[in-house]
Amino acid sequence: MTRLDIFPVDGLPEIGRGDDIAAMICDAVELVDGDIVIVTQKIISKAEGKIVEIDATDPLSHKPLVEQESVRILRRRGELIISETKHGFVCANAGIDLSNVERGTAALLPDDSDRSARRIRDRIRGRFGVGVGVIISDTFGRPWRRGVTDVAIGSAGVQVILDLRGTPDALGREMQVTEVALVDELASAAELVMGKSTGIPVAIIRGGPAEWLGESNVREDIVRAPSDDLFR
Amino acid sequence: MTRLDIFPVDGLPEIGRGDDIAAMICDAVELVDGDIVIVTQKIISKAEGKIVEIDATDPLSHKPLVEQESVRILRRRGELIISETKHGFVCANAGIDLSNVERGTAALLPDDSDRSARRIRDRIRGRFGVGVGVIISDTFGRPWRRGVTDVAIGSAGVQVILDLRGTPDALGREMQVTEVALVDELASAAELVMGKSTGIPVAIIRGGPAEWLGESNVREDIVRAPSDDLFR
Repeated sequence: MTRLDIFPVDGLPEIGRGDDIAAMICDAVELVDGDIVIVTQKIISKAEGKIVEIDATDPLSHKPLVEQESVRILRRRGELIISETKHGFVCANAGIDLSNVERGTAALLPDDSDRSARRIRDRIRGRFGVGVGVIISDTFGRPWRRGVTDVAIGSAGVQVILDLRGTPDALGREMQVTEVALVDELASAAELVMGKSTGIPVAIIRGGPAEWLGESNVREDIVRAPSDDLFR
Repeated sequence: MTRLDIFPVDGLPEIGRGDDIAAMICDAVELVDGDIVIVTQKIISKAEGKIVEIDATDPLSHKPLVEQESVRILRRRGELIISETKHGFVCANAGIDLSNVERGTAALLPDDSDRSARRIRDRIRGRFGVGVGVIISDTFGRPWRRGVTDVAIGSAGVQVILDLRGTPDALGREMQVTEVALVDELASAAELVMGKSTGIPVAIIRGGPAEWLGESNVREDIVRAPSDDLFR
């Protein structure tokens, strides 16, 4: 029986360019093998220098950045742009975020969040000897349903998709619903303890089964090819 | 600090028409005030008699049901139909499910999953004196990203949307991202301990803050009006 313990990592300092997030996490919490460490995109962007200046007096000054970070605009309505980013994510405003950054600045998405996750995972393993999975999470809206949820934009050491094709269901029939987006469910679960207003950027999910761990990454395994997509 | 304990409810019997799910849950687990009880749609459909016979020898025999349960077809590709159900949900095959039901039958969505959730919540409170939130969950795909996640199709006693508009972020600025789909994040978190192949239909999320509880329902608060939707 899987029983999960989900808790935020308190006491992290404000993150700046070049900071060693893996070491900061390990200073703040005693990780154990098999933990899933969820890190919000915002502090990755800060550590990787993806903070850019914008005109604080102009509420639309980040809009040229949205165009720059996008490869395809899907929808516009008023100031809202839904686009496909150069990373392949479809989201509002190309994932550019003005909250929890200094006034007059905006946070762009990391260039390669899977790589960011790998670096943190490798550093935790190399320096602290603990084998964890790492997920970089961000907050996306979705069509048809109000509200935002957190999803994974990068990962390392954790199965992105649990492929249950061929697995019998509880009545012994082969399952129809086969590919569970594990990393997105983990990102959403972690958001529950981070909270948007408290500024806690890291959470731990402890107790998951061994089959959650593995090699895969979000960009290859989650992003649906435009040719497979009915809504692009 | 929010710290969550998420665990499945083991030992529930197979559910049949007319069964008292609330009593069965309370027999299987000792609930405490503030628990969120997540129940998968499948057993609600079974208890409410939403199981219909189909031709087991014809893999497409549930397709007329999909049309019957839909008010609008959004996309078709091969055998896949993405439609808006009469409840307002946009999903594949109108939420009709052939896994974890007897061969030769299909499970339709409950008529009103918010009402189903209210009944369970009220019965747990009335008979067992415990104040809980209840979520009815189902497994939906989504555009742009591979894999499925669990979302809420009904709820009672739990905030559907956490509205953070006007809340300052950690740096004291007003938040941009404002409406968190709490019930969907809770449904995804619960799925992590239920698993699709184990047939565990109920999970508990314990430890959430008091502000998660409240009156609201999925159909009014999550389903986005077609006129507000950029992808319909």
